[in-house]
Amino acid sequence: MKKPDKIILDHGSGGKISHHLTTEFILPIFNNPILADLDDGAIFTIGQERFAFSTDTYTVDPIFFPGGSIGDLAINGTVNDVTMCGATPLYLSVGLILEEGFPIHDFEKVMDEMGRAAAQAGVKVVTGDTKVVPKGAADKIFINTSGIGIIPKGIDVCSKNARVGDKIILSGTLADHGVTILTQREGLTFDAPVRSDSAPLNQMVKKMFAAGHAIHTLRDPTRGGAGTALNEIAQNANVGIRIEETMIPVKPEVSGICELLGFDPLYLANEGKLIAFVGPADADAVLAVMQEDEFGKDACIIGEVTAENPGQVFMETRIGGLRIVDMLTGEQLPRIC
Amino acid sequence: MKKPDKIILDHGSGGKISHHLTTEFILPIFNNPILADLDDGAIFTIGQERFAFSTDTYTVDPIFFPGGSIGDLAINGTVNDVTMCGATPLYLSVGLILEEGFPIHDFEKVMDEMGRAAAQAGVKVVTGDTKVVPKGAADKIFINTSGIGIIPKGIDVCSKNARVGDKIILSGTLADHGVTILTQREGLTFDAPVRSDSAPLNQMVKKMFAAGHAIHTLRDPTRGGAGTALNEIAQNANVGIRIEETMIPVKPEVSGICELLGFDPLYLANEGKLIAFVGPADADAVLAVMQEDEFGKDACIIGEVTAENPGQVFMETRIGGLRIVDMLTGEQLPRIC
Repeated sequence: MKKPDKIILDHGSGGKISHHLTTEFILPIFNNPILADLDDGAIFTIGQERFAFSTDTYTVDPIFFPGGSIGDLAINGTVNDVTMCGATPLYLSVGLILEEGFPIHDFEKVMDEMGRAAAQAGVKVVTGDTKVVPKGAADKIFINTSGIGIIPKGIDVCSKNARVGDKIILSGTLADHGVTILTQREGLTFDAPVRSDSAPLNQMVKKMFAAGHAIHTLRDPTRGGAGTALNEIAQNANVGIRIEETMIPVKPEVSGICELLGFDPLYLANEGKLIAFVGPADADAVLAVMQEDEFGKDACIIGEVTAENPGQVFMETRIGGLRIVDMLTGEQLPRIC
Repeated sequence: MKKPDKIILDHGSGGKISHHLTTEFILPIFNNPILADLDDGAIFTIGQERFAFSTDTYTVDPIFFPGGSIGDLAINGTVNDVTMCGATPLYLSVGLILEEGFPIHDFEKVMDEMGRAAAQAGVKVVTGDTKVVPKGAADKIFINTSGIGIIPKGIDVCSKNARVGDKIILSGTLADHGVTILTQREGLTFDAPVRSDSAPLNQMVKKMFAAGHAIHTLRDPTRGGAGTALNEIAQNANVGIRIEETMIPVKPEVSGICELLGFDPLYLANEGKLIAFVGPADADAVLAVMQEDEFGKDACIIGEVTAENPGQVFMETRIGGLRIVDMLTGEQLPRIC
């Protein structure tokens, strides 16, 4: 493809073009094996302990939406990224960029949501920074959170660990967050209102590890959606992935809006869902504890890891065909998270 | 004072109004003793090790300036914040917000500067995130960096530890960064060009600890300047501080520009300077190793900690008077770092 000479929205999509920006311009600069893993966070050892460290910046527009806000999203998103490394998230930092003129009342509301989310997830915000830029130099509020967690002994999950035979468990319905932001932004209203799935997944993951040791890979399908996340895992682990369309849960109202507007739920963002790759002997036990959790009650097995077609994701469609699921190309929605 | 109902530039000044935003709206929400210390970073213990964790967002305008760029500033700033906690900085995260249309050429240049700065400081960038927002929703590029460091056994520095009798060492000239940004932004040119002092201080601090164990407090006087940093220490440690104006090094060209434009070097930002509070027996040894370091060659003792006037900073002026040095009130320069 022709290289753009300017940053385009696609560079932030979480899909193919984002991946290109990272591998072409960023990885070679900070060349080190921890970064090169490109998982949801970095994993490293200090002394006797293994740590996970992750960062994410939130620019979602609108900042308040059904089911959440930029505040709880910023806490949950980083809690989940640290969790997907197999770690117990402990401490978070908060870096704020505020636009001059942003109403203090909205600021208080965002802080309240952050505090509530941190308490729910059981993590501590221990350090922070606030910058204010002149009106027009930013849009309302952007939030960066970085998080540190500790990886319990015996746990080793990363995208490279997915292996042939693993069952692929999805924790619930797809595209709730993406469709919510989309409809809010476009001012669309529907009879059955949709809500973001913004939620902390660390407590559920703790139970999953207690139920089965053969959890090889965890990933939260945020920007780029489940389709992109599965592709990243297939490529990093050099395995094939086969999923069944009929097994993928999507709420009827979300599915309806996607059809109406021409979006594919496989590529829309989720903010309270995870995908787990689990050895076949442990899959049922892990699935059972997920289904008992408030954030995993719709969990189901959507496919498995295959030896065929390493690096690729195939989906058996509703009508019995087989189609390649590629990484997201093109930005479906800027400022989704 | 009347409470503003909107975010104003002062909220990001690093001075009194920033402090108010933090203590009024942020601390009560994330109520915990680690955050409440309000030092340059958080300090906590995991297992056998003590860690420092810090975050900072960089919105400096212009993004390239004599002596540095937003790229090296973002690395050095967080390296220094972690260092000021007494820690050896190890790992950094990088969170980018890019404006649609930002030239790839400039992006590459910023990444290069980040890579160079990380190599110079000896830290690893291990995790990152990139968001792109539509044109006009941000200005060019904003960078958040968060950093983790480990605190060697026997080291215990924080602002509360400053004690009566401590000598106050300043590592070099004040206001170089602030004046550089100011003149660049206003398009001013002078015969003697000024340069930002952007630099990593971790190597020098390592030598300082080797030279003297009685280092009680370290602080890098960035936003809000040395005047604000000294006030924060006086308040946190509940001690008095007395400094001598004639001992404070300021480059003649910087001093000249400050006089011309009505700025006080005590309140302008520095990005490669530190203030150390050192027990009197160790002060000369610590000063000596600083003066041998490339980033401390102008280091000198500028004052001491007193039992009188706890919580306040006094300066003996050039003409022999004594004036109170307050925290910065009002924003001198938005987007200084």
